[in-house]
Amino acid sequence: MKRPASTTLAAIVAGVILLVTGSLVAPSSGAADAVGPLLLSLAVILAAAKLGGHMAARLGQAPVLGELLAGVLIGNLGLWPGLGADPVVDVFARLGVVLLMFEVGLDSTVSELLRVGRSAVLVALCGTIASFGLGWCASRALLPSAPAATHVFLGAAITATSVGISARTLKDLGAAGSAEARVILGAAVVDDVFALVVLAVVGAWAANPAAAGAIAWGQAGGLVAKTLGFLTLALVVGRQVTPRGFQLAVRLRTSGALLAVGLAFCFSLAWAAGAIGLAPLVGAFAAGLVLEDSHSAGFVERGERPLADLVSPLTSFLIPVFFVLIGIRTDLHALGGGVLGLASALSAAAILGKLACALGVVTPGTRRTVVAAAMIPRGEVSLIFAAVGTSLTAGGVPLIDAQGYSAIVAMVFATTLVTPAALRWAIRR
Amino acid sequence: MKRPASTTLAAIVAGVILLVTGSLVAPSSGAADAVGPLLLSLAVILAAAKLGGHMAARLGQAPVLGELLAGVLIGNLGLWPGLGADPVVDVFARLGVVLLMFEVGLDSTVSELLRVGRSAVLVALCGTIASFGLGWCASRALLPSAPAATHVFLGAAITATSVGISARTLKDLGAAGSAEARVILGAAVVDDVFALVVLAVVGAWAANPAAAGAIAWGQAGGLVAKTLGFLTLALVVGRQVTPRGFQLAVRLRTSGALLAVGLAFCFSLAWAAGAIGLAPLVGAFAAGLVLEDSHSAGFVERGERPLADLVSPLTSFLIPVFFVLIGIRTDLHALGGGVLGLASALSAAAILGKLACALGVVTPGTRRTVVAAAMIPRGEVSLIFAAVGTSLTAGGVPLIDAQGYSAIVAMVFATTLVTPAALRWAIRR
Repeated sequence: MKRPASTTLAAIVAGVILLVTGSLVAPSSGAADAVGPLLLSLAVILAAAKLGGHMAARLGQAPVLGELLAGVLIGNLGLWPGLGADPVVDVFARLGVVLLMFEVGLDSTVSELLRVGRSAVLVALCGTIASFGLGWCASRALLPSAPAATHVFLGAAITATSVGISARTLKDLGAAGSAEARVILGAAVVDDVFALVVLAVVGAWAANPAAAGAIAWGQAGGLVAKTLGFLTLALVVGRQVTPRGFQLAVRLRTSGALLAVGLAFCFSLAWAAGAIGLAPLVGAFAAGLVLEDSHSAGFVERGERPLADLVSPLTSFLIPVFFVLIGIRTDLHALGGGVLGLASALSAAAILGKLACALGVVTPGTRRTVVAAAMIPRGEVSLIFAAVGTSLTAGGVPLIDAQGYSAIVAMVFATTLVTPAALRWAIRR
Repeated sequence: MKRPASTTLAAIVAGVILLVTGSLVAPSSGAADAVGPLLLSLAVILAAAKLGGHMAARLGQAPVLGELLAGVLIGNLGLWPGLGADPVVDVFARLGVVLLMFEVGLDSTVSELLRVGRSAVLVALCGTIASFGLGWCASRALLPSAPAATHVFLGAAITATSVGISARTLKDLGAAGSAEARVILGAAVVDDVFALVVLAVVGAWAANPAAAGAIAWGQAGGLVAKTLGFLTLALVVGRQVTPRGFQLAVRLRTSGALLAVGLAFCFSLAWAAGAIGLAPLVGAFAAGLVLEDSHSAGFVERGERPLADLVSPLTSFLIPVFFVLIGIRTDLHALGGGVLGLASALSAAAILGKLACALGVVTPGTRRTVVAAAMIPRGEVSLIFAAVGTSLTAGGVPLIDAQGYSAIVAMVFATTLVTPAALRWAIRR
């Protein structure tokens, strides 16, 4: 129904007059909803993410890079003050990463992952050792007066790959189901375990240099045991229990049962991982691994969409929030002066260190350069190191000062910026 | 790949041993994520909602009733302490209602709504006047010593229909696109306007009985002007601008553009409604009304799913949170003693009052009983009246005391419980 322009114009004028009259006469009523400002923030984030993603794609880059840069612009130009510190937006971003790991897990199966298990462990080991060594050297060279613990801590801070950006880039490139993707995702899980072990060891050592040895090794061993125990239980019990559980869910006489049961399973495992001191992402990934197409079969037969299709709108809503938020929190001002040198050295160590991952690929038919490129990005685990490091002291000075903190954040950003281009190059080679 | 039971058992034993060892040795690491407890709450809510919905469906009731009762059990048996007061879960519930109103709006078009406009206004008017009158009588009869303002306030508190439960029930019954649904949704929007006007008038009158007349009428007129102005602008400008906007969005070279642009539009209008003192739901509904199938056409042509399909998983995740939370917050203990009489009288007034809506249906082919039944439920607007009423005083005593508050909450629950059954009966008649 196309109306003539004059009618439309008259309606607009009437609307404006009514709005102005209304605002002059009526003070804001008490019924205004607390959720209003959040809605506007989400609208701004979504619009910025898609515009940034489009610009990046036009320049031949991965959309995720554009989402990050959109966030950097919003944050550093002060376009939307307070967005980076909004606790509810932060929860949406965290939930987004949990769901992304779940979605990534849904794309793989346990047996596929076991097939690349040896490669995954070796890739994680090579990347962790090389990154740690290079980071330690960079810190020693550029911060000669800092305590030994600082060098160890900065080295450890650049070990863990943040698989979110690689997973997203691989998805954008249509390679989410490839052998390389499975090696990378497996290695990222092992990587997180290594990083958490290193954090426990270094943290205990810095806190008590004398009696450290025993505590640290005990903690490290405990963390490894916990992670392996969690994954074993989640995968084995999950594969036994979930097929029957989903068969029961098919019989629930209510709409949306598949998504509800799938999300409840994902959230429970993510919570369980968090409750025993692991990253919730590990649990969400395990939940996705356990669930396979056969779990959705009963629902698909009666005309519903499979679980992965239902989760995908949730991640396309929430994941841009995560990436824009990372960008917003990147403070470019902190990069002035002496930090730039340390930031560059750490970034170079982080990138070169993960190239060693290529050595760990032993699964036939898996491209080493793709794996190495995908292991480059650092993220939330490095930021956890930065935060913990500022709270630990050695001889009365913090292990990580403001300079070190900015350098770690800059390293996260540099590795993240480099990855999509490197990965596209490696895949198209 | 089916493994023998002995392998599985061995893996479980190994997992348990590793977990126990790990927990004995390693203290909880600092990497535990703040989002963990929220994930467990969401998992519990989703599981309870689907179980409750299934039970209700087996008993021939609407699933939404089961979700509410699941919440009542969780809340009143203290099964999950603190859930009803969790601010983040509350945000998820509010976002869920916003998205539900958006989805409901997507199901209708502006021209369809205009066709039922006269019925909608008359239905809202009949229901508001009859409810107010009966509520005022009930209050006068049962609270003879209360000030006149209390009677007016309790009467006004039961005027506004909360369309969420009706919309959900109509959707469950496959009648979301019917003529009755359009009358009801239109009447609910008008209803909210009436209620907000009444709240402004009564509030101003109670605050300053002497000079009240002028202020109150000015406020009332302003509120009506604002709402009409907002809807006119949103619908007219929206219909002019959005087709071009979505044609541009089709050209965005990034995934998930349709959902992102749709949500950004919905959230912006919801925020704008909230910012000028209206309920954000009005804005979300207007956004859904403006968007039609033609907006998704460009995306559907290249193989993507239409917007309504993408929004549906979001609501099936978030809406159960809303209904379970309403149930959790219903305190059955508050119903003891003298409150029960007032609660019953208010509930009866609320239900009988909306039967007058049947008189307002003038659109041919629209079933009067269906419209009347769907107008019964009360919700967030009544709860706003309850909250505002406790903060207003007349002659030094609060307009609404603890008894009145409990009675309003009980009325919300009673009308909500009655609606699905009444609506199913009316539709199948």
